[in-house]
Amino acid sequence: MKLSKLVGERTKETPAGVISKSHEYLLRAGYIKQVCNGVFSLFNPAYRVQAKIVNIIREEMDKIGGQEVLLPVLMPRELWDESGRYSSIGSEMFRLKDRSSHDMVLGMTHEEAALHLVKNTVKSYDQLPFMVYQIQTKLRDEPRARAGLIRVREFTMKDAYSFHTTKEDLEEYYNIVKDAYFKIYKRMGMKNVVSVKSDSGMMGGKIADEFMLITDIGEDSLAVCDSCDYSANVEVGESILDNYSSEEKTSELINTGDCKTIEEICKLLDIEPYQTCKAVCYYLAKSKKYVIVYIRGDLEVNEIKLKNLLKEEVVPISVDHPKIVAGYIGPKDYKEDDIITIYDISLKDEKCLVVGANAKPYHIKNFSFNRDFIPEKFENISKVKEGQCCAKCGRGKLKIVRGIEIGNIFQLGTKYTESMKMTIHDENGKEIYPIMGCYGIGVGRCLASIVEENCDEKGIIWPYNVAPWQIYLCPLRLDDELVLKTSENLYNKLQNFGYEVIYDDRNISAGNKFADSELMGIPIRIVVSPRSLENNSIEIVVRKTGEKFMCELNDEKINSLLKEIVNKIK
Amino acid sequence: MKLSKLVGERTKETPAGVISKSHEYLLRAGYIKQVCNGVFSLFNPAYRVQAKIVNIIREEMDKIGGQEVLLPVLMPRELWDESGRYSSIGSEMFRLKDRSSHDMVLGMTHEEAALHLVKNTVKSYDQLPFMVYQIQTKLRDEPRARAGLIRVREFTMKDAYSFHTTKEDLEEYYNIVKDAYFKIYKRMGMKNVVSVKSDSGMMGGKIADEFMLITDIGEDSLAVCDSCDYSANVEVGESILDNYSSEEKTSELINTGDCKTIEEICKLLDIEPYQTCKAVCYYLAKSKKYVIVYIRGDLEVNEIKLKNLLKEEVVPISVDHPKIVAGYIGPKDYKEDDIITIYDISLKDEKCLVVGANAKPYHIKNFSFNRDFIPEKFENISKVKEGQCCAKCGRGKLKIVRGIEIGNIFQLGTKYTESMKMTIHDENGKEIYPIMGCYGIGVGRCLASIVEENCDEKGIIWPYNVAPWQIYLCPLRLDDELVLKTSENLYNKLQNFGYEVIYDDRNISAGNKFADSELMGIPIRIVVSPRSLENNSIEIVVRKTGEKFMCELNDEKINSLLKEIVNKIK
Repeated sequence: MKLSKLVGERTKETPAGVISKSHEYLLRAGYIKQVCNGVFSLFNPAYRVQAKIVNIIREEMDKIGGQEVLLPVLMPRELWDESGRYSSIGSEMFRLKDRSSHDMVLGMTHEEAALHLVKNTVKSYDQLPFMVYQIQTKLRDEPRARAGLIRVREFTMKDAYSFHTTKEDLEEYYNIVKDAYFKIYKRMGMKNVVSVKSDSGMMGGKIADEFMLITDIGEDSLAVCDSCDYSANVEVGESILDNYSSEEKTSELINTGDCKTIEEICKLLDIEPYQTCKAVCYYLAKSKKYVIVYIRGDLEVNEIKLKNLLKEEVVPISVDHPKIVAGYIGPKDYKEDDIITIYDISLKDEKCLVVGANAKPYHIKNFSFNRDFIPEKFENISKVKEGQCCAKCGRGKLKIVRGIEIGNIFQLGTKYTESMKMTIHDENGKEIYPIMGCYGIGVGRCLASIVEENCDEKGIIWPYNVAPWQIYLCPLRLDDELVLKTSENLYNKLQNFGYEVIYDDRNISAGNKFADSELMGIPIRIVVSPRSLENNSIEIVVRKTGEKFMCELNDEKINSLLKEIVNKIK
Repeated sequence: MKLSKLVGERTKETPAGVISKSHEYLLRAGYIKQVCNGVFSLFNPAYRVQAKIVNIIREEMDKIGGQEVLLPVLMPRELWDESGRYSSIGSEMFRLKDRSSHDMVLGMTHEEAALHLVKNTVKSYDQLPFMVYQIQTKLRDEPRARAGLIRVREFTMKDAYSFHTTKEDLEEYYNIVKDAYFKIYKRMGMKNVVSVKSDSGMMGGKIADEFMLITDIGEDSLAVCDSCDYSANVEVGESILDNYSSEEKTSELINTGDCKTIEEICKLLDIEPYQTCKAVCYYLAKSKKYVIVYIRGDLEVNEIKLKNLLKEEVVPISVDHPKIVAGYIGPKDYKEDDIITIYDISLKDEKCLVVGANAKPYHIKNFSFNRDFIPEKFENISKVKEGQCCAKCGRGKLKIVRGIEIGNIFQLGTKYTESMKMTIHDENGKEIYPIMGCYGIGVGRCLASIVEENCDEKGIIWPYNVAPWQIYLCPLRLDDELVLKTSENLYNKLQNFGYEVIYDDRNISAGNKFADSELMGIPIRIVVSPRSLENNSIEIVVRKTGEKFMCELNDEKINSLLKEIVNKIK
């Protein structure tokens, strides 16, 4: 490819509103262009990178027996009614009507379509297990598109669906896919990838893992043990809580005046938040109920855990119920049908807490959950915190780091096969529901994540396997006949050697050419200049290490030096 | 791939409502499954064929300098307002609102998005010419989806956009693309492909060609000269009209009673339709006018030509205007502002026609367009007919055949660059509008068209280059240890030789296996049976020709025989 004809501009200025390196460099180096909020076009270099990523994914999916298929973007409402998700998914799903006013949806995920494909097609246990996958455009109406290709409304995704007769078979395959995912990320050039236990969200099912690239611009918070291999999304992370309970003391009612928040109470009484019990209020819009969550004052409520516990969306509110004394809420058995109380496990065995007295302006000191009020049940609904003890090994401390979710896998079980009534017959001719797994990787997000991890102050440093071109051929002084001839010659030779070459045939300064090659992130730059040709040589520069090599203008020598370099950086 | 795990069923029954061979076989052989009207999922074999088609297209596009990019499916209304097509395109465009009630559209074509990509990115004449293309999902709300993948609402398409500084440069490139298209179809295995001049429809621009696979199930009618290379869609086809004018005779008013139609008049007067002039009425809904088209009685009005002439949609009507004498309309200068008259060229020089007398119940006999009424202008708005004389060579007769449109190319000119205000500067620094061409191929329609042309009563006969697998490995009696071992061994060897192999590892009868291999259309079948192994041989069967070869079970011999066969059928 000749750079003079390549569509896409390289610019020096950082565009306004850009918060991540990948967003900045992909814009500045002419890889992407925003069409509207969360929707991008890919210029040819980005398309080339994406094609290489897709190819790696495809190869690894094929290796584990995947059958590539193609499911539609446009689907009829009926299909999503079958699974119940037409109504359970909110405004993140794009909906539209066709010319005959029929309700349609755009695919944000394809469990329904995959089920449709295999239902009534696969009929017998001996056709299982199998896995179908596709690489296809997905549309998802994200409320907050951000950071270039990191979070968008339209993206290319690989999604796979496996079908099994037993739970054990699913679990075995689930681990095979997990291994394949790590291979995929490695081949793409990502280094700092972990898999973490996660919430399965709208996908349903219980066991789910997310693959996270650890990076500061990540939107997810992860709890990672500094001693064992435990890592989890804080949404589902578990930790062992320190217990600050001391001996029981006589409780006493204290007038706290206008002090209502934990911060105010701590200041007033000169105590730490862990010496208090706070009450956090939520509202359940569907069942029209109030929820009071009691939790130790130093912890936060994990709303995902709370939602999963209550099986309904929760909305934080400033409570306005006649029976609830806002600001002074304490443990209490409410008799009202529209009030639910939940006690976090952090309160168990705590014997000396400051709690609300359910009467204005009072709190109670030295409140004991062993003596003054014993809840029927404690639930685990706190967010894990930096420094807490790992629940897996019991020794390590948890660190909270940020990560970008670059893939996820789910053990769906029979959620979809049951709701959509897909059965097969087992060995005895009995009808059974196949057990499903599903496995996703966002291609565009991987592309951006690779850039996040592989860049410096000059621009992108593409890992060799996914670089749009491997070599940036950079003649200086194209008006020099020998430079021109040598370069054109080299352009053909390098391609014959099997390299993809971007040929900078523009009449601009050496400085600008070097800057462009670095911004674009091409792994190897070959410079042909009047000076190097005086010694019958060319210069080879490695983007990643900055190393420079002079090489005699000799096919064999160039080819063997390039091979050596590639082996080192690959 | 082992057939026992391949998702997709093969059936013997022809599904109801199927009108084309491709639709029937793609359904029956487990290639596609309908999700809803005009929307299909592709099983793995169809995906594999599609991938090969895409690859051929990609290679040929790259060879002529194309840069592959990716434009979005989802686009904001504003982009289509710029070109004016948000309002000019009707209900074939899918429209929806996003979560913030913003008007969005789904891409049915991507001129707007291509313009958006290059606008403000390409600034100077010396960056031209260039061509960007993509292979992406398109959505189009067809009123009449039909014939399986032939006419659908969601499909994969290659669309390309070229930009030029001069008309000559566009024309030159247009012909390069045209050649590339013929290469593409040939490599896909399509034989009976012609390019025909066409109407550019909603794309705008004047010069356009359609690529047509000649086949009876085609939806388009083509006029093809039996003597020269002229071929055109009947919508725009031109022919030389026979002139039946004889000498002028005295005109006379005749009472035709209730006879109004050409058929009735001909019967009454014992004449042929070409001896009459008929009046066909239309209504222009936008400008609220009536149109009377006068045309020789043996010809039909070409409504596409009429629409292009009037630059407005035309609707055929039974006229109810007080000044128009329905059933007895003849040539006349209407003074009314809401009546437009148009005279077809077929009337020129006709001297003895029967025409309406504009008064009930009369017609005029021996009416001459040289004497009795001389229109200001004649227009060319008739449909070409079988047997007419070719307008290009003037010798050949036109044949009307049916074809499937498998691609189209357009010289768009500056329609989009002007409306969307994309300028570049020319050599003198002057701002100019680049001149565009655009070039489409529907991938799924190609897939179906290949089947239409390559099948027999047993099923599909895939051309070698696009076959999902090249070899169908067909062991008979898998309970025979030697058959099993030989087949497994062969399965690996054939793949090592570089073939894609579908391995029928099912325990079913030979007849069923043969039927499936033929229905699926795999080019080469290799049969391993106890009988053939008695002679240390396998049997190789060619799907296309039915030829059978016995081959010794010897790697070299098998490989060389396969090469020979492939060379013959490729």
